[in-house]
Amino acid sequence: MGGEATVYRQRLARLQKRFPHLGIDAVLFFEMKNIRYLTGFTGSDGVFILLPDKGVLLVDGRYITQAGEEAPQSEVVQYRDKIGGIVSALGERGVKRAGFEAASLSVELHEKLRGKLAPGLLIPLTEALTGLRSVKDGQEVLLLRKAVDIATDALLQVIGLMRPGVEERTIALEMDYRMRALGSEETSFSTIVASGINAALPHARPGSRKLEDGDAVVMDFGAVHGGYRSDETCTFVLGRADAKFREVYAIVKDAHDRAIEAVRAGAACREIDRIARQVIDKNGYGPHFSHGTGHGVGLDVHEAPRLSALSDQVLETGMVVTVEPGIYLPGLWGVRIEDMVLVKENGCDILTKMSKELKIL
Amino acid sequence: MGGEATVYRQRLARLQKRFPHLGIDAVLFFEMKNIRYLTGFTGSDGVFILLPDKGVLLVDGRYITQAGEEAPQSEVVQYRDKIGGIVSALGERGVKRAGFEAASLSVELHEKLRGKLAPGLLIPLTEALTGLRSVKDGQEVLLLRKAVDIATDALLQVIGLMRPGVEERTIALEMDYRMRALGSEETSFSTIVASGINAALPHARPGSRKLEDGDAVVMDFGAVHGGYRSDETCTFVLGRADAKFREVYAIVKDAHDRAIEAVRAGAACREIDRIARQVIDKNGYGPHFSHGTGHGVGLDVHEAPRLSALSDQVLETGMVVTVEPGIYLPGLWGVRIEDMVLVKENGCDILTKMSKELKIL
Repeated sequence: MGGEATVYRQRLARLQKRFPHLGIDAVLFFEMKNIRYLTGFTGSDGVFILLPDKGVLLVDGRYITQAGEEAPQSEVVQYRDKIGGIVSALGERGVKRAGFEAASLSVELHEKLRGKLAPGLLIPLTEALTGLRSVKDGQEVLLLRKAVDIATDALLQVIGLMRPGVEERTIALEMDYRMRALGSEETSFSTIVASGINAALPHARPGSRKLEDGDAVVMDFGAVHGGYRSDETCTFVLGRADAKFREVYAIVKDAHDRAIEAVRAGAACREIDRIARQVIDKNGYGPHFSHGTGHGVGLDVHEAPRLSALSDQVLETGMVVTVEPGIYLPGLWGVRIEDMVLVKENGCDILTKMSKELKIL
Repeated sequence: MGGEATVYRQRLARLQKRFPHLGIDAVLFFEMKNIRYLTGFTGSDGVFILLPDKGVLLVDGRYITQAGEEAPQSEVVQYRDKIGGIVSALGERGVKRAGFEAASLSVELHEKLRGKLAPGLLIPLTEALTGLRSVKDGQEVLLLRKAVDIATDALLQVIGLMRPGVEERTIALEMDYRMRALGSEETSFSTIVASGINAALPHARPGSRKLEDGDAVVMDFGAVHGGYRSDETCTFVLGRADAKFREVYAIVKDAHDRAIEAVRAGAACREIDRIARQVIDKNGYGPHFSHGTGHGVGLDVHEAPRLSALSDQVLETGMVVTVEPGIYLPGLWGVRIEDMVLVKENGCDILTKMSKELKIL
């Protein structure tokens, strides 16, 4: 598709424009999600060299055909040995100062490369690449919406299983199965189904605990479409909700709603976190909200920016982030409410579809 | 279990014994599978510091309870900031020369750490850690056998689906579902179901192609039990096998059998590869066997040693490796036959259970 070629060219151009400022004449990419983003290539191994006027995709023999098909904008070169292939490619193209992804290149590979290149040729890049994929274009948003659709449809098929006596892992298994059957390429991450006291653990793994009447059930799930991942959390309650649960649910919901109201281009990520945290703090549950308020989501389920007190990032139009405050009461239960939102100039669109009103199953 | 405590102590002691030779008084571990192997901790983030007399497991607040339960032999320490936590832990314990996993530590994290530690304190380790998990103990072999059992049972449930008109992805989805339902923690890797011309691609992804009469179907699959992964490939044929397919199948089977016959402690990994390759070469299909003959398997589906022409590793009693020659005929079909074997002093035990005789479904 011509439209796709334009998209990749734009992604490359955004970076190429910054070469003079960064004092480089190339960037080496090793992270496969970044390579996919910049070229379209979906293989599991390869190196991408971005030059001022084009991109060169280095792959081994397994991937030569696939790379040619998926990344027609790139010059595709086959290597036998990765280090040798990179050194040749840089040499033949006269590269003098090549930036690289310091967050994903290993010390070992870096040392091997450095030993075969001119001193000072490799320039570590960190902040310059952090936000590479943060701002989504229209096509990426469509893929995220489709991933959300799949996950939502699967949840609606599985929700009837949430009844006393059913094991957490059965619900997780059926959810994963339905998402895949509906077209999800894999699960976005390990589905969480945490019931009763397990719901008090933010990262619980679904196990053999059987749901009971009165249980809170935290369900955190996502589908994958075209490589793009959804991420959503619903907290249901079985049969009945007591006053304490209703109180805590309302606080988390309020934190979630106010944070979403504050999302807009130009807002500081830590301000969104502060707003959610303040609601929970002032109700006395501050120590029980033990994680950040959200994160970017796209080809990775966790990517830039982070919505946390430590973040110094600022929201931009086109970013897609989660908003997911929670309160976890050890030995009792927990509540987390999570939506994905698309940042717009004066607010945001909520991409996820499930209602976050208290739902008693 | 007391037995488990002994196992972890032995794993640590094997490394601690080599400290003088390596000129170090500590090793920093970042790779979570290595940390699991050395401590039992199964969380997704943390750092393990092995000292001459004990191990220290650093985790963030999410994992403090879990780490205490899963890694009782380790001193568990909570950090707020990972870099700060490592620097404090090394300082308090007077570490002078800390080895680290050069293959998994990123340049970025290394730079940050290096800036806060005495010059020369961090020592990159590569070969010294490559084989850390290669030799399996009895408990690990039991877990691998159980993973194989699950995968085998699932395949036997799914094999009836392999008939003309069924999509590859349906078979893959049902296989993954059955493995999970039978207790697999996840799939060992993305299940491959490659039929007809897709079978000519060693790393095909299951798609919407419908099986046809006469198709070869390459099915590469594995289950996970206690973190340990199985890996096995069966190539079936639907309805009828023509002479050419029978010929190629017999060659791959012969390469597979001869390689397995050669597996024993003391054999060079590249020799096993050479033996399989020679069978395929002499029958004229050398250029169509485009990957190595096998690899170690355990907590990772691909780990040391590698059975390839480039390997300089030697098989040892207790290693578990795959033997998986293949012939891929572009535009036609392909055959791969893969078993997992346990290296013994005078031979090997085949851990996988499916017969590898030609099977017409």
